[in-house]
Amino acid sequence: MTKHDADQFAVTREPFYREVAGEIALYEAAYASRMPVMLKGPTGAGKSRFVEYMAWKLGRPLITVASNEDMTASDLVGRFLLDKDGTKWQDGPLTTAARIGAICYLDEIVEARQDTTVVIHPLTDHRRQLPLDKKGELIEAHPDFQLVISYNPGYQSLMKDLKQSTKQRFAALDFDYPEAALEAEIVGAETGIDGESAEKLVQIAHRSRNLKGHGLDEGISTRLLVYAGQMIAQGVDPKSACQMTLVTPLTDDPDMRETLQAAVETFFV
Amino acid sequence: MTKHDADQFAVTREPFYREVAGEIALYEAAYASRMPVMLKGPTGAGKSRFVEYMAWKLGRPLITVASNEDMTASDLVGRFLLDKDGTKWQDGPLTTAARIGAICYLDEIVEARQDTTVVIHPLTDHRRQLPLDKKGELIEAHPDFQLVISYNPGYQSLMKDLKQSTKQRFAALDFDYPEAALEAEIVGAETGIDGESAEKLVQIAHRSRNLKGHGLDEGISTRLLVYAGQMIAQGVDPKSACQMTLVTPLTDDPDMRETLQAAVETFFV
Amino acid sequence: MTKHDADQFAVTREPFYREVAGEIALYEAAYASRMPVMLKGPTGAGKSRFVEYMAWKLGRPLITVASNEDMTASDLVGRFLLDKDGTKWQDGPLTTAARIGAICYLDEIVEARQDTTVVIHPLTDHRRQLPLDKKGELIEAHPDFQLVISYNPGYQSLMKDLKQSTKQRFAALDFDYPEAALEAEIVGAETGIDGESAEKLVQIAHRSRNLKGHGLDEGISTRLLVYAGQMIAQGVDPKSACQMTLVTPLTDDPDMRETLQAAVETFFV
Amino acid sequence: MTKHDADQFAVTREPFYREVAGEIALYEAAYASRMPVMLKGPTGAGKSRFVEYMAWKLGRPLITVASNEDMTASDLVGRFLLDKDGTKWQDGPLTTAARIGAICYLDEIVEARQDTTVVIHPLTDHRRQLPLDKKGELIEAHPDFQLVISYNPGYQSLMKDLKQSTKQRFAALDFDYPEAALEAEIVGAETGIDGESAEKLVQIAHRSRNLKGHGLDEGISTRLLVYAGQMIAQGVDPKSACQMTLVTPLTDDPDMRETLQAAVETFFV
Amino acid sequence: MTKHDADQFAVTREPFYREVAGEIALYEAAYASRMPVMLKGPTGAGKSRFVEYMAWKLGRPLITVASNEDMTASDLVGRFLLDKDGTKWQDGPLTTAARIGAICYLDEIVEARQDTTVVIHPLTDHRRQLPLDKKGELIEAHPDFQLVISYNPGYQSLMKDLKQSTKQRFAALDFDYPEAALEAEIVGAETGIDGESAEKLVQIAHRSRNLKGHGLDEGISTRLLVYAGQMIAQGVDPKSACQMTLVTPLTDDPDMRETLQAAVETFFV
Amino acid sequence: MTKHDADQFAVTREPFYREVAGEIALYEAAYASRMPVMLKGPTGAGKSRFVEYMAWKLGRPLITVASNEDMTASDLVGRFLLDKDGTKWQDGPLTTAARIGAICYLDEIVEARQDTTVVIHPLTDHRRQLPLDKKGELIEAHPDFQLVISYNPGYQSLMKDLKQSTKQRFAALDFDYPEAALEAEIVGAETGIDGESAEKLVQIAHRSRNLKGHGLDEGISTRLLVYAGQMIAQGVDPKSACQMTLVTPLTDDPDMRETLQAAVETFFV
Repeated sequence: MTKHDADQFAVTREPFYREVAGEIALYEAAYASRMPVMLKGPTGAGKSRFVEYMAWKLGRPLITVASNEDMTASDLVGRFLLDKDGTKWQDGPLTTAARIGAICYLDEIVEARQDTTVVIHPLTDHRRQLPLDKKGELIEAHPDFQLVISYNPGYQSLMKDLKQSTKQRFAALDFDYPEAALEAEIVGAETGIDGESAEKLVQIAHRSRNLKGHGLDEGISTRLLVYAGQMIAQGVDPKSACQMTLVTPLTDDPDMRETLQAAVETFFV
Repeated sequence: MTKHDADQFAVTREPFYREVAGEIALYEAAYASRMPVMLKGPTGAGKSRFVEYMAWKLGRPLITVASNEDMTASDLVGRFLLDKDGTKWQDGPLTTAARIGAICYLDEIVEARQDTTVVIHPLTDHRRQLPLDKKGELIEAHPDFQLVISYNPGYQSLMKDLKQSTKQRFAALDFDYPEAALEAEIVGAETGIDGESAEKLVQIAHRSRNLKGHGLDEGISTRLLVYAGQMIAQGVDPKSACQMTLVTPLTDDPDMRETLQAAVETFFV
Repeated sequence: MTKHDADQFAVTREPFYREVAGEIALYEAAYASRMPVMLKGPTGAGKSRFVEYMAWKLGRPLITVASNEDMTASDLVGRFLLDKDGTKWQDGPLTTAARIGAICYLDEIVEARQDTTVVIHPLTDHRRQLPLDKKGELIEAHPDFQLVISYNPGYQSLMKDLKQSTKQRFAALDFDYPEAALEAEIVGAETGIDGESAEKLVQIAHRSRNLKGHGLDEGISTRLLVYAGQMIAQGVDPKSACQMTLVTPLTDDPDMRETLQAAVETFFV
Repeated sequence: MTKHDADQFAVTREPFYREVAGEIALYEAAYASRMPVMLKGPTGAGKSRFVEYMAWKLGRPLITVASNEDMTASDLVGRFLLDKDGTKWQDGPLTTAARIGAICYLDEIVEARQDTTVVIHPLTDHRRQLPLDKKGELIEAHPDFQLVISYNPGYQSLMKDLKQSTKQRFAALDFDYPEAALEAEIVGAETGIDGESAEKLVQIAHRSRNLKGHGLDEGISTRLLVYAGQMIAQGVDPKSACQMTLVTPLTDDPDMRETLQAAVETFFV
Repeated sequence: MTKHDADQFAVTREPFYREVAGEIALYEAAYASRMPVMLKGPTGAGKSRFVEYMAWKLGRPLITVASNEDMTASDLVGRFLLDKDGTKWQDGPLTTAARIGAICYLDEIVEARQDTTVVIHPLTDHRRQLPLDKKGELIEAHPDFQLVISYNPGYQSLMKDLKQSTKQRFAALDFDYPEAALEAEIVGAETGIDGESAEKLVQIAHRSRNLKGHGLDEGISTRLLVYAGQMIAQGVDPKSACQMTLVTPLTDDPDMRETLQAAVETFFV
Repeated sequence: MTKHDADQFAVTREPFYREVAGEIALYEAAYASRMPVMLKGPTGAGKSRFVEYMAWKLGRPLITVASNEDMTASDLVGRFLLDKDGTKWQDGPLTTAARIGAICYLDEIVEARQDTTVVIHPLTDHRRQLPLDKKGELIEAHPDFQLVISYNPGYQSLMKDLKQSTKQRFAALDFDYPEAALEAEIVGAETGIDGESAEKLVQIAHRSRNLKGHGLDEGISTRLLVYAGQMIAQGVDPKSACQMTLVTPLTDDPDMRETLQAAVETFFV
């Protein structure tokens, strides 16, 4: 592992992040003990952005892995590859993070199979070790290494949940959409549209979020509001922009679409 | 990745496409922000043709991938191949598109397994990155790269739907069959049959589309109308041509077949 | 791909085929547009024989693939093999057909997994391309290439059906057992038995076909009649020949067997 | 394929086989047309022995494959193996049989997955070909090649049955246990015990066969009778020999065991 | 296969085994005919010990394979491995046993997948052959080779049972726990504790065995009694020793634990 | 296996462990007979810490494997890897432990597939052998080798339990959370917070443990109490620290969260 590798994962520009409820200080205290942290909250509430911000603030490289149900332990830990001299070990992202002292962020870990979740156990207790069983090597995590995972309590089924023996290895922070004023500020800052339009978009989002569990799986996220703002900033009329970014992607149910369109037309005539 | 590779994916001839409802300008605005776009609509409504047209109009190479439930993340991202010096990395179509700045069109993405859909996440947010975990490389998408996906809301089951955390990464455009006059014009232009025959074929299609959900999974698509026209243009009598291209492929239910044959015989005696 | 390869798939002798209902001219018209064609009908109704006949008549090589539920897209498209210089690409039968301009006949395609059916999409629309994703190559189909598939509507379950987006890429021809006189002529021609015996065999088959759905999954096919004729031509007494070729293979249900034996004994005492 | 290979599969000694109902002549007539044959009957009724006998009588090599639900098409057809010059094709047993003109006997084919059963289709119709898709080779079966399959109608579930399009490729012969006198003769000949003891064993078997479907899945087979005879010939007392070979292997149900023991004690005090 | 290989599997010391009901002579008679033998009985009743004893008595090497549901036919038969000259065949344990004339003991065969059980068929009838399909070799079993399998009728579900066509290839011997006096003698001989303590342990075991099917899946085995004796011989007080070896391992049900503890306290105050 | 390898697994510092109920002496007696031991108890009750402590006390290397449902027998036993001279055998952790005389600790073995659990059988009876079937080698365990497994009876379903034939190979020790005073001492010792705060944390944990089975899957573990103490020691206010480490990770149920928060507020205002 060379210096170059760590550089590749450095967060070089300060990500745009607005604190909501003291989570920066809490995270810093957890990181001081290298305590594993779990970020909980709905899609688009800023979990990924937060961990990127903290990596920048703490000056630590960040390695992000989007978990999925087909991901194997080898995808995290590494595997042998063939080259002209036979097999060569290739570190996986978790191993790289443990070696270079990065923050390793496993996004939506609950999607992964159990072998992926179990593989993090020895890294998340007093051992701070990662056994590379296939290689017969036992690596000690770099003193700066920390593990962060995210998960969305909104749509976990009973079938797919973290095991207690995994859960109880993490401190946890709740995330939710930002307050209205702050969310409008974010949309304005990211798209360049005026404050009034941004506030209108946020109000449309609030109406959709009240429909969660009443016909919608999730409400409109901040990300979609930014998409709407970008379309408006390109000169697209706001109603068409909202239709394309806030209504059509969210649902195919005709009633729900009508309800969302009505919400759009309340603010943009 | 050499110039030759990008050329291979260039759309060199203007595809035949007739705008329906302002979708060209909306797409251009979305592309200006490199916003990921989702095309929704039934089979044969012109989604693939539209993205091909836009790639031609914007002068961007186009890489199309027909998704399927057995497609793995490696099929999209790439894999190591053996050669005489050991293993060699082979970019997958998504990686190629990200490198050369192509529009990458994932057709019917909802058919794919979750690992395929999750792999597009870092390419569809502010990061615009594609981590090649198996290679230990993190690539930045070319500034011109854009991701487009399609899906058919008509036959998605509850079991097979995009995750909200995927959906909320896309602006979306609805597609439907073209208006009657326009569809007849298309059939005429593509087959060389006279306008009256083309209109008759479109009217047969309309009758079948009203049967959707009442015994038919989908109505007759524009593509099948073009097949009918081609048979007629070859000198086949219209009733036989319609039987072979509009009735027999669509259903094996005897009642439905009779209904469709009656529709054919209303227009072609 | 050398000339030799195409020769290997040439149909050099005229297959024995008797037209039933104008299907030869309809197929020729479809082939003139290189339109994909679907052959529908029960086991042993002559679908495979027909496509072989048309390949011979049109002077095109024929590549047949018996689909099955374990067939992968790679089985159709091709794969990398190891040799002493590393990996070497091996074209699959579909790729070979697309390169040499053969008729590619996918028998009982509905048995295959979705990745196999989706792989034919770009070959069956205006693109006429086959992307070899694993090789990073996009091949244009030979101008003479055509795709033909078969399927048996009789025993498709709801779980196993072609997707509409696949179905609507094909013109379709229905197949059924030949008329009695023609079928007897076929049995006579293929086995050398006298006309009267052949007619008796066909009548036994007709009785069994009326039992389809009433205790039998399918009736006796023309192929089994030919087997019976061959046994008779070898000097086996007709009752034993029918028992071995028309009754025992078809069912293990004692009642059904008795019914079929009674049918045999009506004609052969 | 060298001569040596064919020799390896030759049946050099005449297997002990007693004809039951004209099946030898029927098989010879079928073989004269190289007609595929299916042998139906319960475990231990002599199907394997019969095909071995016919191979010896016809002077053909015999290749037997015990089918199972994990057997793949490659297990039958062949696969590429690595050697120092790269990959080398290794014929599977079906391919070997097709090349050398052997009788290929697929035992309990219904146990196999569909890809295994479908692979035999082109070998069992007028084509008599075996496409080695992975190798890109199409082999013509040797003129003496014949395919034989077996299956046990007794315990086929609805889920596991041959497809009609497979079934209707075979003539079929029924097998059952031999008549009492013949079975006693077989047991005597194979074990050396006296005729009276052999007859007693057969009568015990008959009682158990009447229990089939009434607490037993199958009755005592001829093979188990031979085991009993062998134990008796070793000097073991008949009751213990029957207990060990006819009762204990067959069932763990206490009532059934008692019933079988009573049957044993009726004949051996 | 060198002499050294056979030596590796020799049973060099006489295993401790006490005959229960004439099974030694019965086994010897079966071995004289090389008859395949099935050992039936509960966990810890001495099946493995018995086959080890018989191997020692008959002077045959013993190869034991612990079956499991993930074991493949290749795990038994062998596979190709890569070395510097390409692939090299590696015999599996069944093949090794067939070559060197060992007794091959497949423990709990019913756990294995069907391909594993089917692979033994040609070794267990008059053929005594093992086809190495992947290698294209047909090996004749060594004249001294014998196959032995075990299975526990206590917990076979309907889903997991040997096929009749497998069962009817074996003679069978029942095993159960030894009589009280004999079992106490065994426990004393293996642990060195006094006879009275050994008898008490056996009585505790008897009480637990009466609970089989009434809250316990199985009673306390002889092996666990030996564990208890070993702990007592180490100076651990008998109640603690029984708790750790006879109660805690067996069940987590509080009522069952109480019942077992009461049984312990009846004998050890 | 070199000395270096054993050193790698040595436990060099005395782990912090407080005995609860004589388990140290019981374990030593079991180890004296090299008896396999099973540790039973809830998450975070100190099972892993105990085995680490015993390894230190007995001066034995410790190899820990976190079991999971995707772990194969090869992951435990070893596999062949390719290098420039062909394949090279790589011992798995269980094999390494058996060779060097380590204590091998299989954590949550019940998560593993049966092939993993069955592979330990010959190591856990009088044989103390490990057959490396793929390598054709039979290794004798080092005299100091011992196997230890853990399992959590709290959440084993009926579907996932050890087989009796596996269970009855182990002596077993129950583990539970330490007594209140001892647990507070542990929390204080590991975090440096004052005794009063530590006691309060323990009391909160006790309240949560009473909710087990009444809305919580498990109560707060000692590990989470240590996390809370670490946050407090970093200067975070106790209520926030408890929220982040004792409430948010444990549950997403609003009622349960309220109950836990009330418990926190009883002790920290």
